[in-house]
Amino acid sequence: MSWVTTDPWSSTQPLREDFPTPTTDRWFEDYTVGDVREYGTITLSEDQIVEFAVRYDPQLMHTDPQWAATGPFTGLIASGIQTMGVFMRLYADHYVTRCGSLASPGVDEVRWPRPVRPGDALRLRTETLEARLSRSKPDRGLLVTRCELLNQDDETVLSQRVMNLVAVRPA
Amino acid sequence: MSWVTTDPWSSTQPLREDFPTPTTDRWFEDYTVGDVREYGTITLSEDQIVEFAVRYDPQLMHTDPQWAATGPFTGLIASGIQTMGVFMRLYADHYVTRCGSLASPGVDEVRWPRPVRPGDALRLRTETLEARLSRSKPDRGLLVTRCELLNQDDETVLSQRVMNLVAVRPA
Repeated sequence: MSWVTTDPWSSTQPLREDFPTPTTDRWFEDYTVGDVREYGTITLSEDQIVEFAVRYDPQLMHTDPQWAATGPFTGLIASGIQTMGVFMRLYADHYVTRCGSLASPGVDEVRWPRPVRPGDALRLRTETLEARLSRSKPDRGLLVTRCELLNQDDETVLSQRVMNLVAVRPA
Repeated sequence: MSWVTTDPWSSTQPLREDFPTPTTDRWFEDYTVGDVREYGTITLSEDQIVEFAVRYDPQLMHTDPQWAATGPFTGLIASGIQTMGVFMRLYADHYVTRCGSLASPGVDEVRWPRPVRPGDALRLRTETLEARLSRSKPDRGLLVTRCELLNQDDETVLSQRVMNLVAVRPA
């Protein structure tokens, strides 16, 4: 089974104590309520912000640096969806199990309290809030994780509660 | 003021009665609670799904068609973040005002009840749920919109409640 390792973002690192098990041998039992992890960093360039926005979110505050300088954020800012993409990359590289991930039912309370600008160094902080074994399907559990993306000034640029269905360790 | 028109996705159309005002002259007063709109369609190819996922969500169900055939969805599926990107493109092209958009405070209750597969024709349905003038800043209002992305079989692949701050029409 291959894994993508060609993109430079894959060189991001755990920034504090990591899980005892690697993502390739991580199961529902390995997530402990209360654990806090940090991973990073990822930085978006102006070109990366514009490239994403031209396809997915062509609002001028994301696509046109000259217009953006006069706009509500006085400068180019990343699409909130791209900010979620940066979150997802760190979350997939470091937190989500590569062997037991079944699906994500959804995400709650997505907030972008501050904008992301070119050059910001973004890191992920996760706090495992709930880990509930399924009653109807005992081979899996529901994980709820508070996720924040922080910039180099420790300001939160994204916060959300993420749900994941994760398989239990095989007998 | 320029607007991006080079991407082929910009050829999507209103699929039922549209706003009376174009996005370039649309203000808080032009959003009416209860109005339902539809716009589309956008289709993701297998290559577009893999290209996005390699950078933003490198889980094998999104990056590796061969592995995905044996995975929980028995076939390649788009990253949920890319599905949000497709939503955002339709929302930005057709629903959001290009003159009065101030920011989005956040999104609630993001759900992906069914996967998005290569070739699915996705359309956006919006229902304006709330339109509240700000008490502290009377030049703007908060808009809450129920947004769904539907596939060609009328199955919901994304649903969420989106908030937008929108300027009132200048005097």
